[in-house]
Amino acid sequence: MNTVWHNCHAATLADGRYAIIEDAAVVTRGHLIEWIGPRAELPVADSAEHIDLGGAWLTPGLIDCHTHLVFGGDRSGEFEQRLQGVSYAEIAAAGGGIASTVRATREAGEEQLLASAARRLRSLLREGVTTVEIKSGYGLDLASERKMLRVIRRLGEHLPVTVRATCLAAHALPAEYAERADAYIDLVCHEILPVLADEGLIDAVDAFCEYLAFSPAQVERVFQRARELGLPVKLHAEQLSSLHGASLAARYGALSADHLEFIDESDVQAMAAAGSVAVLLPGAFYFLRETQLPPIETLRRHGVAMAIASDLNPGTSPALSLRLMMNMACTLFRLTPEEALAGVTLHAARALGLGASHGSLEVGKVADFVAWDIRHPAELAYWLGGELPKRVVRHGREVRHG
Amino acid sequence: MNTVWHNCHAATLADGRYAIIEDAAVVTRGHLIEWIGPRAELPVADSAEHIDLGGAWLTPGLIDCHTHLVFGGDRSGEFEQRLQGVSYAEIAAAGGGIASTVRATREAGEEQLLASAARRLRSLLREGVTTVEIKSGYGLDLASERKMLRVIRRLGEHLPVTVRATCLAAHALPAEYAERADAYIDLVCHEILPVLADEGLIDAVDAFCEYLAFSPAQVERVFQRARELGLPVKLHAEQLSSLHGASLAARYGALSADHLEFIDESDVQAMAAAGSVAVLLPGAFYFLRETQLPPIETLRRHGVAMAIASDLNPGTSPALSLRLMMNMACTLFRLTPEEALAGVTLHAARALGLGASHGSLEVGKVADFVAWDIRHPAELAYWLGGELPKRVVRHGREVRHG
Ligand SMILES: [Zn+2]
Ligand SMILES: [Zn+2]
Repeated sequence: MNTVWHNCHAATLADGRYAIIEDAAVVTRGHLIEWIGPRAELPVADSAEHIDLGGAWLTPGLIDCHTHLVFGGDRSGEFEQRLQGVSYAEIAAAGGGIASTVRATREAGEEQLLASAARRLRSLLREGVTTVEIKSGYGLDLASERKMLRVIRRLGEHLPVTVRATCLAAHALPAEYAERADAYIDLVCHEILPVLADEGLIDAVDAFCEYLAFSPAQVERVFQRARELGLPVKLHAEQLSSLHGASLAARYGALSADHLEFIDESDVQAMAAAGSVAVLLPGAFYFLRETQLPPIETLRRHGVAMAIASDLNPGTSPALSLRLMMNMACTLFRLTPEEALAGVTLHAARALGLGASHGSLEVGKVADFVAWDIRHPAELAYWLGGELPKRVVRHGREVRHG
Repeated sequence: MNTVWHNCHAATLADGRYAIIEDAAVVTRGHLIEWIGPRAELPVADSAEHIDLGGAWLTPGLIDCHTHLVFGGDRSGEFEQRLQGVSYAEIAAAGGGIASTVRATREAGEEQLLASAARRLRSLLREGVTTVEIKSGYGLDLASERKMLRVIRRLGEHLPVTVRATCLAAHALPAEYAERADAYIDLVCHEILPVLADEGLIDAVDAFCEYLAFSPAQVERVFQRARELGLPVKLHAEQLSSLHGASLAARYGALSADHLEFIDESDVQAMAAAGSVAVLLPGAFYFLRETQLPPIETLRRHGVAMAIASDLNPGTSPALSLRLMMNMACTLFRLTPEEALAGVTLHAARALGLGASHGSLEVGKVADFVAWDIRHPAELAYWLGGELPKRVVRHGREVRHG
């Protein structure tokens, strides 16, 4: 039986851009959108359930296309120490920073990781997120990366959300490989990636290209391996310096390059030509008090699609809210509210290789949407924190988050 | 009958500072705290109900000591226009800015104002807020200020929260008094304040001292009237420029001076001597992309208590989360998590003249507290947005927010 959702307006993001239908109706059949348009043009359907949305604004379900939400421990103690005047160097010398998260993640049992990650993920889901990408990258050995990726798969089975799993084994150099980065990249390419891909745990491959992580040459070895394995790639690039990682990613047809504060126009042109999405992470920019803004105007001029994500991670963006990231993208990066909405729907779907099925309200796409009790879509980016009243529909059925 | 809350740790904020009790217990009788201490020292009490908090961290109920959450309309359209490149001048010329909120508030019915304000207030309450201050100041005539203050009183009757009502008639110059600021101050002093005080609608008097609002001389007339009426005062001071409003407020023994980005050391000394609380509003600082930081180090050196509030308002801080303000106070203003927690409990209570009864977990104070499912109090300031699992207790009884 069909369901007719009516008495609503819709920000559809159809045909690849922000677009609205006032006084709209949506017809869903099973988990798909069968029809959407002005209510006046609604086709006659006798045997349909009708659901009155009370004048709500519909948007596609929100998509958080860059998170690291599976991890052991947290870094609130380090946050506190920093504010009490302890230096980064002192914290690192005491085993803090990402090394402490790797340690805690390796030590944690799979059930424990699942429980803490589920709790963080629920915070996103309550806000209207229906699709999320989650990266490994705190395991940094075969068993621990496998453990993380298994937790990521199980999150998608246990909670009402579509999960994409990204292997980020090339996130940081584990302590046991100190001074032997190339040997660690060997491990990633010859063991971690092929084994875990074979186990069906990987949807995409990511790496961290930065002077304090891996060089473009090392990243390229990872990308070559991913290509051999038939896996799409993405990259943490140009967050803190310019190594032209975004251009490298574009050469490998990357789904996205992420962060991008330091990209230059040649990188932007390469991304535009490759169709790679620019994933902006204003939470990390805010939390680290960065001052170098991503070149939004250049990205716009070259028509590079901009997505926005939480980067949810314990060290640089403990962000439990994607809607807050929309506000930060507007307030800090000067995106418009329409761009911010496209950034967490349409373009976020493309950044996950899900552009054909997710990210907009169009016939044939999955029926993932949120009915917001607001007067105008700009409110989604305007309100700072808090929770906006809403109903969340995933795969054609209303989801209740307790 | 008493209630014993156990299996918890407590950040008590007792004796005027951050302090913790590990493995604590709290005994409440009616709406008050009868005993608090280490569980091992819990007095024997047969006829008590025992509630197991599962290892949670207790804090005092959160106090948002500076909000403007009653208003008509919202300014999301203006937010969007600004990001689309429309200038402030063009928006003002088209009747935007605070004038549009005054218009919408005057036009709104009391029930309509109540409903929209209740919705925003619920967002704060879900986060653990048990006491809130709400200002008038979008009415700017007797009838409309009365309407706002009546809504503020009714919010405290309808929702499980202690509400303090502040009359901010001297917020902005209404259009009908253009170029006649002194005449408007006459209206405030001779009609609005005495009439509404007589109706029992005012707990404190506030004003906006700024070159684009009222001069120190005008503010002083308002403060003199408040003194004659026996009402405590507070002040919006030094947000955008230095007029020494904070010193003026201190001369009148103000409960607080708020914003304070531009105060100098003489103002800080005056506040310290008067015991006025410095209310910091990082949401407005963030939303307006200000760069002048309040002089935190100077405030610390002179021992001025620092509170943190949302400033929830439609134009400069549409902030629906006090916990996000804690993060912004740490991230942007470099407060420590302990200072941030004291800023939304202990010092916020003092900023409302409620220091004797609220703001800490101490015998004889009201039993308003939150049991947070976290591992360390620093997490309250660390996580960025989202909702942390918790139980909220007000006046000794658990409150459920749907
Ligand atoms: Zn990341
Ligand atoms: Zn204010």
